[in-house]
Amino acid sequence: MTGTGTTVGFVGLGIMGTPMAANLVRAGYEVIGHDVDPDRVAQLVAAGGAAAGSVAAAAGADVVITMLPDSPQVEDVVLGPDGLLEHAKPGLLLVDTSTIRPDVAERVAKAAAERGVRALDAPVSGGEKGAVDGTLSIMVGGAAEDVEAARPLLDVVGGTVVHVGPSGAGQTVKAANQLVVAGTYALVAEAIVLLDASGVDPGPALDVLAGGLAASRVLELKRASMVAREFTPGFRIDLHHKDMGIALAAAREAGVALPVTGLVAQLVAAARAQGLGALDHSALLMVAETISGRDYR
Amino acid sequence: MTGTGTTVGFVGLGIMGTPMAANLVRAGYEVIGHDVDPDRVAQLVAAGGAAAGSVAAAAGADVVITMLPDSPQVEDVVLGPDGLLEHAKPGLLLVDTSTIRPDVAERVAKAAAERGVRALDAPVSGGEKGAVDGTLSIMVGGAAEDVEAARPLLDVVGGTVVHVGPSGAGQTVKAANQLVVAGTYALVAEAIVLLDASGVDPGPALDVLAGGLAASRVLELKRASMVAREFTPGFRIDLHHKDMGIALAAAREAGVALPVTGLVAQLVAAARAQGLGALDHSALLMVAETISGRDYR
Amino acid sequence: MTGTGTTVGFVGLGIMGTPMAANLVRAGYEVIGHDVDPDRVAQLVAAGGAAAGSVAAAAGADVVITMLPDSPQVEDVVLGPDGLLEHAKPGLLLVDTSTIRPDVAERVAKAAAERGVRALDAPVSGGEKGAVDGTLSIMVGGAAEDVEAARPLLDVVGGTVVHVGPSGAGQTVKAANQLVVAGTYALVAEAIVLLDASGVDPGPALDVLAGGLAASRVLELKRASMVAREFTPGFRIDLHHKDMGIALAAAREAGVALPVTGLVAQLVAAARAQGLGALDHSALLMVAETISGRDYR
Amino acid sequence: MTGTGTTVGFVGLGIMGTPMAANLVRAGYEVIGHDVDPDRVAQLVAAGGAAAGSVAAAAGADVVITMLPDSPQVEDVVLGPDGLLEHAKPGLLLVDTSTIRPDVAERVAKAAAERGVRALDAPVSGGEKGAVDGTLSIMVGGAAEDVEAARPLLDVVGGTVVHVGPSGAGQTVKAANQLVVAGTYALVAEAIVLLDASGVDPGPALDVLAGGLAASRVLELKRASMVAREFTPGFRIDLHHKDMGIALAAAREAGVALPVTGLVAQLVAAARAQGLGALDHSALLMVAETISGRDYR
Repeated sequence: MTGTGTTVGFVGLGIMGTPMAANLVRAGYEVIGHDVDPDRVAQLVAAGGAAAGSVAAAAGADVVITMLPDSPQVEDVVLGPDGLLEHAKPGLLLVDTSTIRPDVAERVAKAAAERGVRALDAPVSGGEKGAVDGTLSIMVGGAAEDVEAARPLLDVVGGTVVHVGPSGAGQTVKAANQLVVAGTYALVAEAIVLLDASGVDPGPALDVLAGGLAASRVLELKRASMVAREFTPGFRIDLHHKDMGIALAAAREAGVALPVTGLVAQLVAAARAQGLGALDHSALLMVAETISGRDYR
Repeated sequence: MTGTGTTVGFVGLGIMGTPMAANLVRAGYEVIGHDVDPDRVAQLVAAGGAAAGSVAAAAGADVVITMLPDSPQVEDVVLGPDGLLEHAKPGLLLVDTSTIRPDVAERVAKAAAERGVRALDAPVSGGEKGAVDGTLSIMVGGAAEDVEAARPLLDVVGGTVVHVGPSGAGQTVKAANQLVVAGTYALVAEAIVLLDASGVDPGPALDVLAGGLAASRVLELKRASMVAREFTPGFRIDLHHKDMGIALAAAREAGVALPVTGLVAQLVAAARAQGLGALDHSALLMVAETISGRDYR
Repeated sequence: MTGTGTTVGFVGLGIMGTPMAANLVRAGYEVIGHDVDPDRVAQLVAAGGAAAGSVAAAAGADVVITMLPDSPQVEDVVLGPDGLLEHAKPGLLLVDTSTIRPDVAERVAKAAAERGVRALDAPVSGGEKGAVDGTLSIMVGGAAEDVEAARPLLDVVGGTVVHVGPSGAGQTVKAANQLVVAGTYALVAEAIVLLDASGVDPGPALDVLAGGLAASRVLELKRASMVAREFTPGFRIDLHHKDMGIALAAAREAGVALPVTGLVAQLVAAARAQGLGALDHSALLMVAETISGRDYR
Repeated sequence: MTGTGTTVGFVGLGIMGTPMAANLVRAGYEVIGHDVDPDRVAQLVAAGGAAAGSVAAAAGADVVITMLPDSPQVEDVVLGPDGLLEHAKPGLLLVDTSTIRPDVAERVAKAAAERGVRALDAPVSGGEKGAVDGTLSIMVGGAAEDVEAARPLLDVVGGTVVHVGPSGAGQTVKAANQLVVAGTYALVAEAIVLLDASGVDPGPALDVLAGGLAASRVLELKRASMVAREFTPGFRIDLHHKDMGIALAAAREAGVALPVTGLVAQLVAAARAQGLGALDHSALLMVAETISGRDYR
C-alpha cells in the first residue's frame, strides 16, 4: 500500500490532522479530506489534497485515517448514521489516530469487523511538531496483518510505529504514557516548590536531578522553561485533562485501582479549574505552587 | 588538598563508606577509619587504611568524612559528647555524605562554625556500584571556598560534584531527588498494572513509553527487571522509606505542602509494611499490584 | 395528587424499586409496574399492583417513577426509542429515583420539557431497609411546583424529602453524600489500622472517637461490625464504586478538582479489584489493611 | 485522691492549662502552677492557686499535670536536666495531657518507671470551651491502677475519661481522632466545592447530608459556619498541622501506611502554607476552593 494509487480519506483536519494529511500528500498519496470546518478542508486542497464534502464521501477511499478530539466524535464519525462504516467499501482499512478510551476503540473495531472493515487504533504522541516533521510515535492496536498493511502510511506520518497488541492496546499504551507524563510533571513541580521554598536555586538543583536516577525526558526538555515559568504549549492542560479521564476510564474498565494516577488526575483538573487549560501541561507547576500559597501569577 | 600528605578521617564504614574510603586510600590519602563494627575497620586496614579506635581518634585528621544511616547518628557522631566537634582541631573540614534532614545539616554546620570547623553536607546518589566505581553524584551544600577545598577528595569518590547552595542545600536537593525517583517508580508501577490488566504485554509497551515524553532513567534501567518481577537491590525500600521521611520533614520545615509526595511516601511505607523492605525500590510495583488484588508473590 | 385516582407507572422493580412500589400500592395508588425481569413484575402483581408489558405501557400513567441501575439505563428507558418520552401523555410527571450523573439528569429534564413532560431527579439514600420502611431520604432536583406535585407520592416512599435545587441538583447532592460517606469509611479504616498496629484495642478507642468531634453516623452504625470484620451488605462496594464514578464525573462537569475524592475513589476501586464488590462498603477496611500487609482474610 | 489534701503541680498554663488548673482549684485541690510566662502563673495565683518558680518546684506535689505544646517540650520538662523526674518524690503520679507522639509518651513512661514515678498519657479533646467547662474528653494510656488513682482529678477537668490501653495508647487514640477529624473536614470541603460549582446551594444540601449516612459531628457543628465562610477558631490549623505530623509519625512507628491520611496531612500543611494557620481547622474549605481556582478571600 504505497503512495502511488492508494487513496486515503482523512477525517479531522485540526492542528494534528492537517500536517499529517499534508505529509501523506507529499508522499504521493491521493488524500481526500473532511472536517466540520470548511476552511481546514480548503487548506488541505491548497496543499494538494482533495475535498470530501462529508464523512460519507471520504469513506470510499482505500484507507481512512481519523484524527478527532475524543471518544464521542469517533463514535459519531465511525459508527453514527451516515458514518464511515455505513459508507465504507468492503476491505476498507480504518486507522483511528485519535486518543480515545480503549473500550471505545474495541467497540469500533468490533463494529468494523461486522462490516468487513479492518480497524486499527493508532494514537500518536509527539505533538504538533511531531505531526509537522512526520516523527510522531504511534502505538498501534489491531491485527498484525492490518498493522503491516498500514505501516507504509504510518511510516509517513510517524517516526516510530510499534504494534503493541490487539484492538484497544494502542489506546491503553497511550493512556499509560499520559499518566506517567502527567505524574512526572507533578513530581518535578513538587521538587521545584520544595527547592524554592528551601532557598535552593532550582536551576542547578534540577541539573543534578537530570543527571541521576531522577532523570526523565520531562526534566531534560522542560526544566529550563518550568524554572523560567514559561508555559506556552506544547501540549495543553485541556488535552491532558481529557487524557487523564481516559486513563481513569481505562483503569475502571480493566478493573484496577491507580491511586497516584487518581490524585494526579485531580491536579490536572485543578490546573484547568484555575484557568490554565490553554497552557502547556508543565503548568502543573502553578498548581503545586498555589497549593503552597506560592502564587507567582 | 591533594592525596599526598592529607589525612582523612572516615566515620561510618558500611556498604557505601567502605568502598568510598578504599578509593581514597587508592588515591593516596592517609585514611583513618572508624565504625561501630570492628570487622569493617579491619577491612579498611586490609585495604591500606588505618584504624581509629573511636570517633575522637578520627577527629584529628585534616578532613573527616561521615557516611552514617540517618540524622540521629550524625547528631550523635558530630555533636554528641566525645563527638567530632569536641575533638576536632581548628580548621577541620567536615564532609557529611549521609542522607539526613536538611535542618539537621544546617544545625550541624552552625555548631561546627562555632568551633571553627568548616562543614559541608554532601549526600550522594548512585548506590553501592557508584561508591565502588567512584562515580557517585554528590550534591554539596556549604560555603563555596569549603566546597573547593573538598573538591579533590569529592572527585575521588564521585563522578559528578555539584555545589547547589548553602548549608543544607545538598540535603534538600537529595530529598527532591528521592521524591522524584520514588514517584516515578509508583507511576511506572501503575502503568504496568493498567497494561497488564488490560491484556497488553507490558514489555513492548514500556519500550514505547521509554522512547517518548514518558521516558526516564527509571524506565531505561529498571523496566526489564520490573516486568520480570526481579527486585534484588539496588537501593532498598527501607532506605527509600527513610528518605521519604526526610523529604516530608524538609517540606514541613520549608512550610510547603506536597500532595503527590505525601501519597507516594505512604506507598513506600506500604512496601515496607508488606515485608518488602529489603527489596529494591522498584518493588513499589508489588504494592501497586496488591492494591488491585494482583498478587504474584 | 393523593392515592385515590392517581395512576403510577413504576419502571425498575429491583431490590429498591419493589418495596417502593409496594408502599405506593399500600397507600392506595394504582401502580402499574415494569421490569426486564417478569418475575419481579409478578411479585408486584401479587402485592396488588398491575403489570406493564413494556416501558411504553407504563408511560400512560399520571406519574412515572423510575429506579434503575445507572445513567445508560435511564437514558435508554426515558430517551430511547419506545421510551417513556415517546409514549408519555402530556403533563406526565416523571420522577427518576435512580442515582445517575447530574448532567444526564439535566439532559433528561430538558428532553422531557420539550415533550411537555415534567421531570424530577430524586435519588434516594437509606438502602433496602429505608425502601421497605418508607423512610428513605430523597434529594429532589427540579421545579418547585413539580416537587410539590410529587410530594404526596415521595412522602409515601421516603421519610425525608428535600427540594435541593433545579434539575440535576438532586443528583449532585447525592454525589456529594456518597463521596463523604466513602471517605469517612476510608478514614475510619485507617484509624483502625493505626490503632490495631499500635497494640490499642480498636473497640473502646472508637467508642471515644464516636463521642467527640470525630463522631459520624458511620462510626455510630458501623464501628462494631467493622471491628468484628463483619461486612454483610448493607450497601455494596460495587454500587459505591459506581457512585464514586458519578461523583468524579460530576466534578469534571462542574469544572472542579477533588483530590481526596479522587484518591478515595481509587480505594473503592481497589476493594472491587480485590474481589470485595459484593460486600458492604465498610469493607474499605480490608483495603486499608491489605495496603499495610495486614490481611486477615 | 480527692481534692482535700492532695497537692497538684501544673506545668503549662496556656489556653488549655489555665482553665484546667482553675477547675482543680475550684474542686478543692492545692494547685501549684508553673509556666515560662510569669503572667500566666500570676493568673493562676489570682484564681486561688500557688506559684511554682520552676519545674522543679512543681515536682514536689502528689500529682503533676503537664499541658505542653509538643513532644520536645514534654521531653524537656519531664526528662531534661532539672526536669520533673529529677526532682520528683517517689510515687509521684505524672499525668501528661499534652498531645504528643505515642513513642515519646512510651519513652516518658519508661523513664518515669525507672525513677519510681507513675506516668499516664492523657491527651484531651474538646478545645478551650471543654477546658473551661470541665467537659473535655480524655483518652488515657497507662496502668489501670494509675488511671484509677488519677480518675478523681481527671473527672474534674473532663467529662469523659476513658482508659484505652497501656502507655502511649492515649496518644495513639488522639492521633486516630485527629486524622479522622481533619479528613472529615477535607471531605465536607470537597462536597461544598462540588455543590457550589454545580449551582446547588450548599446550605440545604448539607442539611440533607447531615440527616443521613454522611452525618458527622463536623457537619452538625460546623456546616453553617463553613457555608458562611466563618473560620474563627476553635481549633487552629497550626495545631492540627502539628497533630497530623504526630499521626504520620505514629503510623511510621507502628509500621503501617495510611494513604488518605498522608494526603490530608498535606492539605492541612497547605492551609498553613497559605497563611491560614491561625484560623479554625474548618478553613480546610479554603484550601479545597483554592485548588479549584475558587478563591473567595
